[in-house]
Amino acid sequence: MRIAMLGCGVVGTEVVRLLGTHTEDLGARVGAPLEIVGIAVRDPDRIRSAAVDRELLTTDAGALVARDDVDIVIEVVGGIEPVRSWLLSALRSGKSVVSANKALLASHGSTLHDAAAAAGVDLYYEAAVAGAIPLLRPLRESLAGDRIRRVLGIVNGTTNYILTRMDETGASFAEALAEAGELGYAEADPSADIDGFDAAAKAAIIAQLAFHTRVTIDDVYREGIGAVTAADIASARELGCTIKALAIAERAGDRPGVSVRVHPAMIPRSHPLAGVREAFNAVFVEAEAAGQLMFYGRGAGGAPTASAVLGDVVAVARNRVAGRQGPGESAYAALPILPMGPTITSYHVQLDVTDKAGVLAAVAGAFARHDVSIRSVRQDGRGDDASLVLVTHPAADAALSTTVEDLRVLDGVRAVSGVVRVEGVES
Amino acid sequence: MRIAMLGCGVVGTEVVRLLGTHTEDLGARVGAPLEIVGIAVRDPDRIRSAAVDRELLTTDAGALVARDDVDIVIEVVGGIEPVRSWLLSALRSGKSVVSANKALLASHGSTLHDAAAAAGVDLYYEAAVAGAIPLLRPLRESLAGDRIRRVLGIVNGTTNYILTRMDETGASFAEALAEAGELGYAEADPSADIDGFDAAAKAAIIAQLAFHTRVTIDDVYREGIGAVTAADIASARELGCTIKALAIAERAGDRPGVSVRVHPAMIPRSHPLAGVREAFNAVFVEAEAAGQLMFYGRGAGGAPTASAVLGDVVAVARNRVAGRQGPGESAYAALPILPMGPTITSYHVQLDVTDKAGVLAAVAGAFARHDVSIRSVRQDGRGDDASLVLVTHPAADAALSTTVEDLRVLDGVRAVSGVVRVEGVES
Repeated sequence: MRIAMLGCGVVGTEVVRLLGTHTEDLGARVGAPLEIVGIAVRDPDRIRSAAVDRELLTTDAGALVARDDVDIVIEVVGGIEPVRSWLLSALRSGKSVVSANKALLASHGSTLHDAAAAAGVDLYYEAAVAGAIPLLRPLRESLAGDRIRRVLGIVNGTTNYILTRMDETGASFAEALAEAGELGYAEADPSADIDGFDAAAKAAIIAQLAFHTRVTIDDVYREGIGAVTAADIASARELGCTIKALAIAERAGDRPGVSVRVHPAMIPRSHPLAGVREAFNAVFVEAEAAGQLMFYGRGAGGAPTASAVLGDVVAVARNRVAGRQGPGESAYAALPILPMGPTITSYHVQLDVTDKAGVLAAVAGAFARHDVSIRSVRQDGRGDDASLVLVTHPAADAALSTTVEDLRVLDGVRAVSGVVRVEGVES
Repeated sequence: MRIAMLGCGVVGTEVVRLLGTHTEDLGARVGAPLEIVGIAVRDPDRIRSAAVDRELLTTDAGALVARDDVDIVIEVVGGIEPVRSWLLSALRSGKSVVSANKALLASHGSTLHDAAAAAGVDLYYEAAVAGAIPLLRPLRESLAGDRIRRVLGIVNGTTNYILTRMDETGASFAEALAEAGELGYAEADPSADIDGFDAAAKAAIIAQLAFHTRVTIDDVYREGIGAVTAADIASARELGCTIKALAIAERAGDRPGVSVRVHPAMIPRSHPLAGVREAFNAVFVEAEAAGQLMFYGRGAGGAPTASAVLGDVVAVARNRVAGRQGPGESAYAALPILPMGPTITSYHVQLDVTDKAGVLAAVAGAFARHDVSIRSVRQDGRGDDASLVLVTHPAADAALSTTVEDLRVLDGVRAVSGVVRVEGVES
């Protein structure tokens, strides 16, 4: 089995190292030796690990994927073009592809899957979501006999680290972000993580596999964690909750359709996701027959991501040795993607109010006008420090957000000081 | 795809029901309709769910698996014979087999795998370990490119329920067992669970897949939880630990070999397994590149087990439609199984001692004579209530157990009141 690598950064170097260290084991598991025949990089003169044979380096990725003697292409470059063209060319010429590229799979997954199916080869991408955690294979194979209701995922280590620190130390968002940057958990430009783009790509891939329907990153509703305050976290704590950045994919309650979204949400501390700390990832799945499942582990980093890549390499190599293909795209359900407005959610709302009679009645009236039912309300403080903390029953997101807009201008409400969606509560 | 069912108890009925309810979805996922053509049962006159078509019932399992028009045999009977013969006959005549039978797979797995390989068909058994939790497929496929160091599993819901209740309510073992019985978590004869036989079968299957080597239930060292006392649990709590019944499969430290064992063990409360409560199962995996992973969910029950069975049915049916096979047995590593004596473990030991000078020195001397190093020691109480609580560094289990025997007869030691192994601590 002859392998071409596209990219040789942190993950690629670890893939090369592990392929070298575990040569015998991997060969025995596949039933044929694995050999790297070329590594396409942008800068061949960069200093690299001794594990990387400089003789294999090339800057011509296009020529490498076109070589007749290549069986498998591993892609750890990232981004859309020129990677998309390289991988299409590889698939069309009969190579199997293993990719860690979430952005590409979440935008052009169907095109790539079609090319793989037409050529009778495999396209695997376990490393694209939740790093080392085996998630895509369980979703697409182990749970293939069940009906998945909902997936809640902590799929971005940077934002989970920040929210963990805010929860455990009382730090502000800015302080926790700075700390994450110092420890290497946040990039110099952290917007892909903070604003939820990274999680949205993963949510699209998860939803596609869970619900057998095509979902792209453009279908995903997205809110970042930049607006989460220390006060929100403190308020969550008083309710026995914590706040996590979640990627959510769920079936619409009563009609065909799925909701796919990324936003911060309050979850009970008793929820299995609440204990997932720092940069760890975890994905919680609710299925009709299987019930509640959770998959936990490292979502990023060179070695964990390389583990997922190599698991896929062994799988596609075994398939080639046996002259077979693994399961391809399953999108028969063709479900509509629900916009955020009619999606059913719950809100936690904190209001600064004037401490006088009638405020609670006015606030309750605003909720009632939009047919939103209140699950709990707590009144704190007195005088100018008075506040109301409300948690709603599930309702259409549009009704909830319109209610909040009404509250902002309601007499007796000085400010809407916090709005966070609530997840993981049995209704 | 024509399916023969062997067995129609709780799990079998749920499989039949889900096949009926999700017919269209499952057919679309497989690429061919799934149809049950016969169900072998012992007593066809028993009252059954309306989902089970009585016309399909037969008492002749041998004739059912011999039918030419059957593609897939689902086995949810349990036990060794006559099931072993039925499944061998099914495999040899070209049927793919999906089984939930841990005892059979842990005793005769290799024979069955050989028959499947010779006939070019699939043998899948995800439901045999940890119910609905996708575990075997991730071990055998997702982590195929990595090197697994250790697997720690809570794979028996009955014992986890009992230990959870002892931990959370201070109940004795007998009280918690009685409660488990009332709630249906423990059988009338609970010895298969309590004495670790159920977990030992699962440990053998896990070890085989994790380490690519043949392991049978006879290779598994086994201790039940019957000797765990409320005092052990209380002592664990004071050390920031809890006690869990673990199935453990790990590589020997410095030589080729694996240790496979089932016993109660103290683990830190900060360990992800510590939060796995009541009848839930979870399996914690440490791999060289992937790092720490955990898989969590329901380990038993009709619907969760049926979900795992149906995931396998979809997989083997897809394989048959495509004219291919999934991965078979991987046992190339052929590693020796380490007996318990040289296996490296740590002990927590609680001693009732006389409160006089020199006792600690004598106790420390007993450990030193067997080359066992002490990690921590705490002296509690005075006079006749004095006790010593020691935790060792890792050492050979034989050295640890011999030390404990020496302590029993040591002057100044009134009783060895608790001995529990310690796991999940970084050494």
